[in-house]
Amino acid sequence: MSHALRVTVWNEYRHERNPNHAASRVYPEGMHAPLASALAQAGMQVRVATLDDPEHGLSEADLAETDVLTWWGHAHHGAVADAVVDRVQARVLDGMGLLALHSTQGAKIFRRLLGTSGNLKWRESGEKERIWIVDRSHPVADGLPEQFVIPHEEMYGEPFDVPPPDDLVMISWFPGGEVFRSGCGYRRGRGKLFYFRPGHETYPTYFDPTVLQVIVNAVRWLAPGRGPAPIYHNRPPLEPLPPNE
Amino acid sequence: MSHALRVTVWNEYRHERNPNHAASRVYPEGMHAPLASALAQAGMQVRVATLDDPEHGLSEADLAETDVLTWWGHAHHGAVADAVVDRVQARVLDGMGLLALHSTQGAKIFRRLLGTSGNLKWRESGEKERIWIVDRSHPVADGLPEQFVIPHEEMYGEPFDVPPPDDLVMISWFPGGEVFRSGCGYRRGRGKLFYFRPGHETYPTYFDPTVLQVIVNAVRWLAPGRGPAPIYHNRPPLEPLPPNE
Amino acid sequence: MSHALRVTVWNEYRHERNPNHAASRVYPEGMHAPLASALAQAGMQVRVATLDDPEHGLSEADLAETDVLTWWGHAHHGAVADAVVDRVQARVLDGMGLLALHSTQGAKIFRRLLGTSGNLKWRESGEKERIWIVDRSHPVADGLPEQFVIPHEEMYGEPFDVPPPDDLVMISWFPGGEVFRSGCGYRRGRGKLFYFRPGHETYPTYFDPTVLQVIVNAVRWLAPGRGPAPIYHNRPPLEPLPPNE
Amino acid sequence: MSHALRVTVWNEYRHERNPNHAASRVYPEGMHAPLASALAQAGMQVRVATLDDPEHGLSEADLAETDVLTWWGHAHHGAVADAVVDRVQARVLDGMGLLALHSTQGAKIFRRLLGTSGNLKWRESGEKERIWIVDRSHPVADGLPEQFVIPHEEMYGEPFDVPPPDDLVMISWFPGGEVFRSGCGYRRGRGKLFYFRPGHETYPTYFDPTVLQVIVNAVRWLAPGRGPAPIYHNRPPLEPLPPNE
Repeated sequence: MSHALRVTVWNEYRHERNPNHAASRVYPEGMHAPLASALAQAGMQVRVATLDDPEHGLSEADLAETDVLTWWGHAHHGAVADAVVDRVQARVLDGMGLLALHSTQGAKIFRRLLGTSGNLKWRESGEKERIWIVDRSHPVADGLPEQFVIPHEEMYGEPFDVPPPDDLVMISWFPGGEVFRSGCGYRRGRGKLFYFRPGHETYPTYFDPTVLQVIVNAVRWLAPGRGPAPIYHNRPPLEPLPPNE
Repeated sequence: MSHALRVTVWNEYRHERNPNHAASRVYPEGMHAPLASALAQAGMQVRVATLDDPEHGLSEADLAETDVLTWWGHAHHGAVADAVVDRVQARVLDGMGLLALHSTQGAKIFRRLLGTSGNLKWRESGEKERIWIVDRSHPVADGLPEQFVIPHEEMYGEPFDVPPPDDLVMISWFPGGEVFRSGCGYRRGRGKLFYFRPGHETYPTYFDPTVLQVIVNAVRWLAPGRGPAPIYHNRPPLEPLPPNE
Repeated sequence: MSHALRVTVWNEYRHERNPNHAASRVYPEGMHAPLASALAQAGMQVRVATLDDPEHGLSEADLAETDVLTWWGHAHHGAVADAVVDRVQARVLDGMGLLALHSTQGAKIFRRLLGTSGNLKWRESGEKERIWIVDRSHPVADGLPEQFVIPHEEMYGEPFDVPPPDDLVMISWFPGGEVFRSGCGYRRGRGKLFYFRPGHETYPTYFDPTVLQVIVNAVRWLAPGRGPAPIYHNRPPLEPLPPNE
Repeated sequence: MSHALRVTVWNEYRHERNPNHAASRVYPEGMHAPLASALAQAGMQVRVATLDDPEHGLSEADLAETDVLTWWGHAHHGAVADAVVDRVQARVLDGMGLLALHSTQGAKIFRRLLGTSGNLKWRESGEKERIWIVDRSHPVADGLPEQFVIPHEEMYGEPFDVPPPDDLVMISWFPGGEVFRSGCGYRRGRGKLFYFRPGHETYPTYFDPTVLQVIVNAVRWLAPGRGPAPIYHNRPPLEPLPPNE
């Protein structure tokens, strides 16, 4: 790709604007801020879009100029317009990458692309999360240690209602006894989706350098390829058909 | 399973009732008839449901008593009520098997469970289809020859817009130069989906004994297991949490 | 299958015969004894074979009459004759199932069929193991709870040097901070392999009813199918070839 | 990667040196020549190694400086020393990529890394091969058309005795009625393997620009990542173990 990778960092951005919510203190400039900053520092061309922007900041024109879309949603999945979900899905099938972060497992677009509920166990406990790399050949694991710790996070536990990942890269351990498939790649049409678990709004997870490394790696892996555009319709034969008996 | 497998054979059933449509001559009793008959002969308890039945014959009660649902749809995918699609999806995630036949690749329920368009190339030519088994360890291949021929079929060609199958069992060859992933298994929640390509309404494909063998095999493979029901919610830890620093 | 499933329970059977080894007290009749008993109780026809039997109890004739082979090896992998490994591999490719238990991850036959080292982290600590079901649609999960505990086991931790499993059914949690892909299915030719982690020789794991349930489930899943035997050689065309330009 | 990708192009190189073999006329400078040339033109640092070099040109030092190894073997698989096979396998598990071309499906290293026979059907007929892209999201498909034709090739047909590919990118169609999974990716340890079918020694396949594009793409995809090196041994716990009851 000769141009810089064009990334849209999408954020629900409501918790952080509520002065009574802990997120407003942890992420005073919004959860998108550290993500956008890390991606820009990695040489990408970054724009931010949020739920309360017109068309959620995801117009046809916006998406046409987006190579990879990162998505963080939590409490307002229902407020995302179905027309925007349709549009994002179509762009993924046409090649755009989608990085689904943390509670985005409940978002319409996540369920739409995977066909499952995204449900899971959860506990808001500030527990330690230990993330193990289980596919050391995968680009998302580039430069990572064999495991890393996030000191305080929300717990997510299996069963995680997603299809078997095409690429299972990471598994989380929690002290309360749970495990979780926390780094999962999927291929859909010409595009790809990656789910990365950490990122509860009340912990400073998105300031953690290893977490940001995973996110940069994942966005690179999600960059659109140049595979063939599909031809879907009634087609004449490529070879002469034998006469029909 | 101590009871006979309970199968609902669902059919759009409009082509066959139109006396001007070739399907009315090939399948005078409906495309569901040979399927239902083969499944019953294999010892299953079979009922038939169609698009024009109340609630399409797929009420909550109907689905609750269905272990495996087979689905043939073609020209009226849009007429299927979204509420019924929701309900079928929920039942699959809860364990019901779904056998998606032929043009069902365009049905709402197929797109819903897979997250892709299901699009493909096609040609209505009466071409020969040669189907190769590429996973000889798979239960859907039980008792089959290494390849078999359907003398006249509609052609479906790649690219087929589906996720990479969890189980790729069959690949079709067509004389016009195309190939197609024609036997594809997917796991979703506690349930499974199998897609089997053949079955255009103007050819007597569903009277072919090998095709019927595949369908019986697939329904058996799709039978609900007795895996654990998921527990999805806020959960106390199973192990004592260390004190939060 | 009309006959009872024919299972050969293979055991290294040296630890247990050493009166100074703890295994001799935990498994006085050999680690194969509780496995053979559970499989027989499930209606299978069971024989036992051990390392020190002639040809390790795995002659051509023995294997020809074996539908599923279960294997427990640990300290004497090198003592298994290569000719026997060749023969077991050939039988798996021809349809026999192989259940690889615990430290069998280091056995020649395991490395042979998977192509990787099978290496892992380990700690002999008597730690608790908590095993989570992550594929609730899988026959190996039949009748299991969503997670179960083995009170004292050896720890195995990631990275586990195996190919990405075709079917990932279980993930283990250990209190020392590790996770492990502990229930892994693979398809090889007409046959299948399942790896199940628990079973250190100094703990009574193979008397645990849930563990035995997994083993019975896995053996059933590994039963040979009736997929087509392959035809591998120089073959005339099935369709008339066009003249070569 | 800051340095140029270091590629070793390995060739059996016996057919071409036999003046009575058609390969000597099609590839007078060896089958490695067009491959090496295309890879060098793509900016890679290329060396050539052949069966009859000392240690087959694959000493420990050679492999230590190889990022991706391409391999073409056919009639002399048995002449490859087992010690070299061991060494190549170890390097793949440690991160080196391996591109297995055409009849390399019968090579020791191929069987070693996959665990299966690599067997298939074949016919030396100069038939047309039509290769379809079935994973349009995959880097190996970069810049390719949706299908391309090789005018004259040897036919390879299913069943192809390999594990289900982790990434199935291409399927071939042959006029004689066969299909073949002809572009297959596998992950092994920190490394990857890609199998690409075309390349019979009596046809000028490796002068075809689209075929060379696939090979360049595949080598790029096979480039070693920077995932964590594994730690495999007896390990103290990362978390304090609860007292053993």
